[in-house]
Amino acid sequence: MASLEEINTIAGLAHEAFLVLRKSNFRQRAALMNTIADEIEALGDELIQAAHEETHLPVARLTGEKGRTLLQWRSYGAALASGSILDVRIDTALNERTPPRPDIRKTYVGIGPVVVFGASNFPFAFSTAGGDTASAIAAGCPVIVKAHSAHTRTARIMAEAIRRGVKKAGYPEGTFSQVFSSSREGAQLLVKHPLVKAVGFTGSYTGGKALFDIAGQRPEPIPVFAEMGSVNPVFVLPEKIKNAPAEVAQQYAASLTLGVGQFCTNPGIIIIPEGHNEFTDSLVAALAQVEPCKMLHEGIADSYVQNKATVSSQENVQVLLEASSSEKGTGAPSLALTTAGEFLANDTLQEEVFGPFGLVVTYANTGQLEDIARKIHGQLTCTVLGEEEEIRNYEDLLLLITEKCGRLLFNGFPTGVEVVSAMHHSGPFPACTDSRFTSVGPDAIRRFARPVSYQNVPDTYLPDELKNANPLGLYRLVNGKVTQEAVE
Amino acid sequence: MASLEEINTIAGLAHEAFLVLRKSNFRQRAALMNTIADEIEALGDELIQAAHEETHLPVARLTGEKGRTLLQWRSYGAALASGSILDVRIDTALNERTPPRPDIRKTYVGIGPVVVFGASNFPFAFSTAGGDTASAIAAGCPVIVKAHSAHTRTARIMAEAIRRGVKKAGYPEGTFSQVFSSSREGAQLLVKHPLVKAVGFTGSYTGGKALFDIAGQRPEPIPVFAEMGSVNPVFVLPEKIKNAPAEVAQQYAASLTLGVGQFCTNPGIIIIPEGHNEFTDSLVAALAQVEPCKMLHEGIADSYVQNKATVSSQENVQVLLEASSSEKGTGAPSLALTTAGEFLANDTLQEEVFGPFGLVVTYANTGQLEDIARKIHGQLTCTVLGEEEEIRNYEDLLLLITEKCGRLLFNGFPTGVEVVSAMHHSGPFPACTDSRFTSVGPDAIRRFARPVSYQNVPDTYLPDELKNANPLGLYRLVNGKVTQEAVE
Repeated sequence: MASLEEINTIAGLAHEAFLVLRKSNFRQRAALMNTIADEIEALGDELIQAAHEETHLPVARLTGEKGRTLLQWRSYGAALASGSILDVRIDTALNERTPPRPDIRKTYVGIGPVVVFGASNFPFAFSTAGGDTASAIAAGCPVIVKAHSAHTRTARIMAEAIRRGVKKAGYPEGTFSQVFSSSREGAQLLVKHPLVKAVGFTGSYTGGKALFDIAGQRPEPIPVFAEMGSVNPVFVLPEKIKNAPAEVAQQYAASLTLGVGQFCTNPGIIIIPEGHNEFTDSLVAALAQVEPCKMLHEGIADSYVQNKATVSSQENVQVLLEASSSEKGTGAPSLALTTAGEFLANDTLQEEVFGPFGLVVTYANTGQLEDIARKIHGQLTCTVLGEEEEIRNYEDLLLLITEKCGRLLFNGFPTGVEVVSAMHHSGPFPACTDSRFTSVGPDAIRRFARPVSYQNVPDTYLPDELKNANPLGLYRLVNGKVTQEAVE
Repeated sequence: MASLEEINTIAGLAHEAFLVLRKSNFRQRAALMNTIADEIEALGDELIQAAHEETHLPVARLTGEKGRTLLQWRSYGAALASGSILDVRIDTALNERTPPRPDIRKTYVGIGPVVVFGASNFPFAFSTAGGDTASAIAAGCPVIVKAHSAHTRTARIMAEAIRRGVKKAGYPEGTFSQVFSSSREGAQLLVKHPLVKAVGFTGSYTGGKALFDIAGQRPEPIPVFAEMGSVNPVFVLPEKIKNAPAEVAQQYAASLTLGVGQFCTNPGIIIIPEGHNEFTDSLVAALAQVEPCKMLHEGIADSYVQNKATVSSQENVQVLLEASSSEKGTGAPSLALTTAGEFLANDTLQEEVFGPFGLVVTYANTGQLEDIARKIHGQLTCTVLGEEEEIRNYEDLLLLITEKCGRLLFNGFPTGVEVVSAMHHSGPFPACTDSRFTSVGPDAIRRFARPVSYQNVPDTYLPDELKNANPLGLYRLVNGKVTQEAVE
């Protein structure tokens, strides 16, 4: 499937739809988002059943993920309607200045057709109808989804719902398309197509980096927002582990094994002061109680076993828990232990093991803890567990950690990514290819928009959000002041 | 100069300074900006004279450019202090939700040390102390400037002023450095250095694209904000040219020859309906009256002659005005004419000729006008000259044009880039490498910042802009509402 001819046709339709979407204002696109959400909401058991069969994710989890998906469409639409994500700036003319200052107004336009590569671990929220698709359409960009090969039936059902929504809301067919391709060449043809202007991707480092490189080497380079691997380190301070070793172990075990460890925010590494056997004993006990569950597909389960073995077989790594036999395709919680010295010397210990595998790293002193913070690669999240009082002695550590992540957590765990405006789900390379943009929360829309200034354009030809009367009722920065008032 | 050892030292100092700057809040950095501006303002005749001798730009122009440079430092500082550029978002905890929603707050942190390559045509405003340096420091990023080889004396004077400001404001030496290197290798070493996290560049397509490629191929790719070539097409509608041929010609001639055509927004191409000899005659007459002036340096003057010859010698291009002899190093206004048909068939006609050279392209009908809009490459600016009434018949043209530019102008000319919040000085590739970020106006700061979310971080450890009490008095998006109030 997905021949060059087919891709040309789809990209052409997307570009035509783009010019139509460009004529829509923020409110109209918010209405489109809600119409699509309604169609997704109306999907019944067929969707959940298909996804359950294709991904082995439990029905309860999938039902929750469907709700999250609806929240994405609706809250991104609401942020669009309120204008809170796309800053509007107006600087009015100063005719008395020499030379006169012209009237300049800035808003955002969609960047153009966007190609989306969905993730296997979120068949709803980060796939065909996921956050990338929702935020691109919010920005006024048609979307071409490359369906994930691990859940094609789910992808088809979702695509039909989106198409119905697009049609009902009166937008052209090219607003949304989905292609199926099992070959890398198909994916590359999409990314290389001259009418495609951006790429959204959630998946492995290898996959994301390959697309990033292809996009950067096009005659016209385009941005790739690839959310790739992350080990989401948890830094535990001395007082905390002394006061609550069993509690920390329980909570860490719960986060590590949630969804068979198949979250991009899975906390794969925990860094603790040395000499806390009570913590490791509790952790082994907690993990041993977790039933091995089927992973998303056999390829992922096989990689889990293999990657776990790679880390566990490094020098001076001690295996604390290893499920000796487990059913094919399942992921059994596992745990290994090493020292800060080893961790600092061996980059392999930083590699992501996608699944419920934890690596405990022990440090001897604050210097080692800071060295680890300096050494770790870019991450989606970093977490600090500490007593509120002791944290004040770790100001430098906090600065070093913050430099490495998109989200810093205190006394919590990174799994569970809230769909809110304040969420930044991104992080320095290699966690993501662009740390400046989030893939969760309304600000994800910004990835697919670019500003345009309008200079001395008569009011009647301005986009609605820039008109004097402020018909959309947005907060705008007018001559340096935030205001909802009309321009005189 | 600029050996690897020297670059290692400078980058190391920059990274140390980065960690210090990270501890400063928006207001403190605004104060640093003002202190540096004061030092630049205090520079006397020595600066203007050095720049005049090195660039041949008139003293009046340089005096104006110094004022613009001060405006950049001060207005970016003010935008920082008001919080209007760096959106702060707060979503407070919902403890009653199942599971409870954590408290999440998002602000921006500097991306890390930034390397800046200045432009020859703005020795103050886009060079050592130019907009890239000012916006990077505003974002909390130390700057390493690669001094432009065409005005090294000016660069040294400016660098000393910045260093005095940095010292007076109490920031470390590594906050600002400048290196001199005449080799490409020196530039590449800077861009490849692992502690460097972003690049700002203003100059040629060749130079900018080379840096973009190097930065994208690093083990850790980093963003490059390169503002490169642009021909800034002017689209003239039929009624306008019928009603005011001589006026349009006069104004176009003035914009085309301003500063010997050495502006990135120089309107190198004007597209008019066919059969308007009165316009071309007036234009030739107006251009012929402009004295040839010395260009920035002889290399630029030589390239001007050569690039002009390349375009003029294309098939079916008629030379309307060619200064037959002019002093070495000067740029004489020149004009050529071709048809839409030729323009659409020959990409060479789109190439930028840096200097006071104009190409008039005549169209036979609206279809050809739209085809040109489809064909033109990405631009910093596009301009429409038309009577207000006739513009309503060109809605599709406007959409097509907007897709190709960062700034759309009506009945004006693109030279003169206002330093205001509503300015977007950028454009789709190949005008720039990243159309989503401006290099002029306070929003330029965003290029060098990345968001970070803080989850459940106690108030005392939050950056000032996120604290409950809102000590900086910023407008913040709190639970979806814009407010200046404290968080309860």
